Formats: sequence, C-alpha cells, structure tokens
Amino acid sequence: MRIAIDAMGGDHAPKSNVEGALAAAELWKDTEIVLVGDQNQLEPLIDNKPANVTIHHASEVIEGEDEPVKSVRRKKDASMVVAGRMVEEGKADAMISAGNTGALMTTGLLVVGRMEGIERPALTSMFPTVDNKGVLVLDLGANMDAKPEHLVQYALMGSLYREKLHGLDRPRVGLLNVGTEAKKGNELTKAVYPLLEEMPINFVGNVEARDVLLGVCDVLICDGFAGNILLKTLEGTAGTLFSILKQEFTSSLKNKLAAAVLMPSLRGIKEKMDYKEYGGGLLIGLKGLVVKGHGSSDATAIKNAIRQARSAIQSGLNESISKEISGK
Amino acid sequence: MRIAIDAMGGDHAPKSNVEGALAAAELWKDTEIVLVGDQNQLEPLIDNKPANVTIHHASEVIEGEDEPVKSVRRKKDASMVVAGRMVEEGKADAMISAGNTGALMTTGLLVVGRMEGIERPALTSMFPTVDNKGVLVLDLGANMDAKPEHLVQYALMGSLYREKLHGLDRPRVGLLNVGTEAKKGNELTKAVYPLLEEMPINFVGNVEARDVLLGVCDVLICDGFAGNILLKTLEGTAGTLFSILKQEFTSSLKNKLAAAVLMPSLRGIKEKMDYKEYGGGLLIGLKGLVVKGHGSSDATAIKNAIRQARSAIQSGLNESISKEISGK
Repeated sequence: MRIAIDAMGGDHAPKSNVEGALAAAELWKDTEIVLVGDQNQLEPLIDNKPANVTIHHASEVIEGEDEPVKSVRRKKDASMVVAGRMVEEGKADAMISAGNTGALMTTGLLVVGRMEGIERPALTSMFPTVDNKGVLVLDLGANMDAKPEHLVQYALMGSLYREKLHGLDRPRVGLLNVGTEAKKGNELTKAVYPLLEEMPINFVGNVEARDVLLGVCDVLICDGFAGNILLKTLEGTAGTLFSILKQEFTSSLKNKLAAAVLMPSLRGIKEKMDYKEYGGGLLIGLKGLVVKGHGSSDATAIKNAIRQARSAIQSGLNESISKEISGK
Repeated sequence: MRIAIDAMGGDHAPKSNVEGALAAAELWKDTEIVLVGDQNQLEPLIDNKPANVTIHHASEVIEGEDEPVKSVRRKKDASMVVAGRMVEEGKADAMISAGNTGALMTTGLLVVGRMEGIERPALTSMFPTVDNKGVLVLDLGANMDAKPEHLVQYALMGSLYREKLHGLDRPRVGLLNVGTEAKKGNELTKAVYPLLEEMPINFVGNVEARDVLLGVCDVLICDGFAGNILLKTLEGTAGTLFSILKQEFTSSLKNKLAAAVLMPSLRGIKEKMDYKEYGGGLLIGLKGLVVKGHGSSDATAIKNAIRQARSAIQSGLNESISKEISGK
C-alpha cells in the first residue's frame, strides 16, 4: 500500500514529518511512503533513504493562516493539494496532513471528493475514556450546520469504523445531547433521534457531555459545532487542571518532594488524557482515506497517524461504507 | 426585601433548604425569607423560628422526573409554582429553587413571565477561571434553538449583570465559537457576530471553548445547546480527572503518603473548579428574579443562592435590563 504525507504541513514540519515517516518506513516494510513537499528542504533531512520512501516534489505550501477554500483552489501545487490529488487519482491509498485543518477539509471535499451517496464528510477522532476503550466522536467540525440526515450517515459510518478498525461487535452509538430522555434537545437532535431508532445500528440513545469520558458508548455523533465545543472544552479543562496542579505541586519544597513521588502516576494520567496518543483524526465519507494530524504533531504523532492510515486501508473501511451507503 | 425559597426542590430537600435558609436569616437580618412547601414537613425542621423566616404552605411538589410544562400547568399548588407566583404578584422580590430545572424554566416563563421586550430568558452561571475572576456564561439551556436576536439580548443582559453585580467597567463580552476569526462558525454565530459589533457593549470577538477557563472574557454568550455541552464537558472532565487522581494517589502506600502532603493543595483546586461555590444560576430576562440552585445543593449552596439573590435585588439588575431593553 502507498501513503502520501503532506511533508510541509504542521507546526514542526518538515522535520517531524520526515522523522515520523522514516520511523514508520522502518517499522512497516510493506508500506510505501511518499513525502510530498519541497525537494530542496526534504532531501537534506534524509541521510539514508529507505527503499520504501520516495519524495514527490510540490512547490507550494498552504500556511496556517491561509483562507481554506481560496488557498486550495489557488495553490494547485501545494503539498497538501498534491497529496490529495494522489489519493483521488489512485496513486496513493491514503493521505496524511498536520496542516491547516480547514484547508484539509476543503482538500477532502474538492480534491479527493465525496463518496457517492454521502452528503457530508465528517471529521472523527478517538477520545480517551476511563475504561481505556475510547470513544469515536464525529463530527468534530467538517460540517458546522448539520441536518438530521447527515447525523444518520455519521452514525452508520462511525459504527462501521469501530467494527472494521477495532473489531467491535454492534458498537453502541450515542447521540450527544443535553439530557438522556428521548424528547430532550434542540431541533436537530429531536429530529434525528427517531431516525436513529430506525437504523440498522445499535443506537443507545442520548448521551450527556458529562458522561462521554465514562465510556457509555463506542461512537458519539453530533454536529460539527457541538463536537468542536466538546473537544476543545475537554482539552481546555484538562490542560488548565494540569497547569494548576503543576503550579501547586511546585509551590513549596515540601510539595515538590511529594509531587516527585507521584510524578509517574501524574505522567500516566496526562498521557491517558492526551488525544495525541490516539493518532490523527480520520476524515470520513470521502472517495479516499484522509487522516488529519494535530497541528502540533511531533514525529511520534506522525508515525501514529501512519499506523492509523494503514489500519484503515487494511480494514477495508471505505469499501464497507460505500457498500452500506450506495449498495455498491 | 423578601426572598421565596422552594423548600421542597432539590436532592436534599427540605432539610438542606431549611438549614440554608436559617443560616441566611441569621446572617442577613434585613432579609425576610419565605419557605414555600409542606408545612407539616417544614415545621419539625425548625427549632426556633427567627423573626425573619416564615412558612408559606404549598401542598404539592414537582418531582425531578415530572414533565416540565405539564407539571407546572397542572400542579398549581406546587412549592415551585407558588414561589413563582409570589414573585409575579410582587409578594417576593426573588425566588430560589434547586428543583427540576426544566420546570423552573417553565415556571419562569409561564408563572413569573418574560420581561417586556425580552424574547427569550437565559439561564446564567459563573464559571471558574484560572485568574479567579470567573466568567458569566449564558445561555446554559433555557432556549435550545436560539436566534441571532436572542444572543444579542444575552450579550446586553450579561454585560449589565457583570456591571451591576460585580462592578466591572465595560465587561468584555465574547461569543463562544469554533475559532477566533470573525468568519468562523455555524449559521447562528456567523449571523450574530456583526450584530454584536454594532451593540453598545465591549464585544471582544469569538472565544474558543479551550480558552474559556483562562479568563479571556467576562461574559460568554452561546445558544442553550452549546452552553449545556460546554458546562457538562467541563464538569465531566474535571470530575473524571479528580477521580482518576484519587485512584492513582491511593494505589500504593508510597503514593498515599505523598498525596497526604499535597491534600490541602488538591482540595483547594477542587473547590476552585467547583461551580457549587459560585452559588446558583440566575434565570435572566424575566419580570422578577429567579435563582436556580444545583439539584445537589446542600445548605451552603442554598445560603449562597440567597446571597446571590440579595445581591441581584440590591444591584437593581432587573430595572437596568428593563430600562436598556424597552427604555422604561
């Protein structure tokens, strides 16, 4: 299989991207990795190019501040766009980028293209849960104003994701809502609830935001706006708490000594709550596989994103979705 | 001033409600407190009734599982409804309830009534921030499908709240959104952004969910659905983290000893992140003052809610909102 990496996207690009790609190439000899980006910058970063790594030159870069739609349309030779085109043309089985999220979603829509029958692609990510099993949340922001029929497709795609990639049997699908009762919610969730009950999935009803981390469902669906609020509140609260803990634990010598004893435990908790450990997010519902790495991805995060792309390719996820949606 | 307490609402009612009311009556002699509820249950809980505490009998109770609109309409002699009627009739300056939230919002709308010129009341609450100044968030669920004009009124009411109750000069008003750029968001936030720019408030633009706890604004506005997701994700993440910390810190004798040293710091952080310390949430935009206590309110929480009601009455908040909205 062949995976295209946007070597120029992300806060630590191209260095971390190249390092992550080289580590992955070493680990998975069956995977051909294509680094897409400026040849002059990429070549000096590679001492001994492994046989399964190639460079595909792209002269432009989409920056973090670039306006998504405009930049994808205009920068036709941007590393992200070129990687997307490789997927669209069947020259790569998946693409990975840690660059501008809006531009990546636009690349997914305009360059890779929607899967037939899918109305809106969705951005997914695994969230940590206390039972260590994790929950797949979608949509995290690909589609801000979702309609009921979009959420129904998210439920189907998310369910297949957990089945195919994680081997779950009849994954429990929950609807993010303000209460557990069927009649709770806004117009969208109230309209989608009865539709989900009719679907050939294991719909377990409404899930409140406070219960998401407890592992009450395997797939959680929501519109992109609510998903973004959920994700960023989680990140913000965890981050704030850890920084307050750090401050308190170093505020006196006595506290410092005690905190040193607890450090391995604290580090474990921090890693557990860290979405980066879970690899990238899959942009789902497109003709090809697109993996979004976090903007601050280091080499390990890039390697994990490649691992995730490999699993998704091997699982036949896209073929399953296509079959389920359009019967093809 | 006179404050009516729904003595029967909440997980620890009527005991905690009575205890909190008695503590408040002791503290603020100028405040007349009316305990609304079943006389037979309330009287045995009071040994020496202070001069500024009275009981107003109400024969019915709205339970936690009751359907809000139906129960408010049918149980005309429910403690919550009777307290609301006292406010509507000018027999109390404010009412407090820790009972069924949906029923309380219905009581606000149908019994107390909307303030002239206000399209939708909003449920508010102070959230903790790392700079200890806190941020007022509204709406937290009074109105699930908000329109741009509703959010504009929230901005105005929230701004007056921080001015009148907390003495802030030109409070910074932020719009909860998925990115900081003006063009980000869903249809609602994109429509409301330019309207907020035209308002006579200190609008500081979009605020991402991850920055809310950092204290980047004094007032944060959002629709009730997003507000509920924000609040419950915050509660859920903090709660989950503290329970994981507890688990880890008691997992070995070594850890237990170290954690004991840090316990005062940990307790301080937990209190800081605890919304209960901040008193109840004000239901704003009604003809009278309605304070919602948390369902699990203990006596301290009830006392704090009374403190908050007193401050709101003394500040002339409702008169200011009315003047600003309808010019009256």
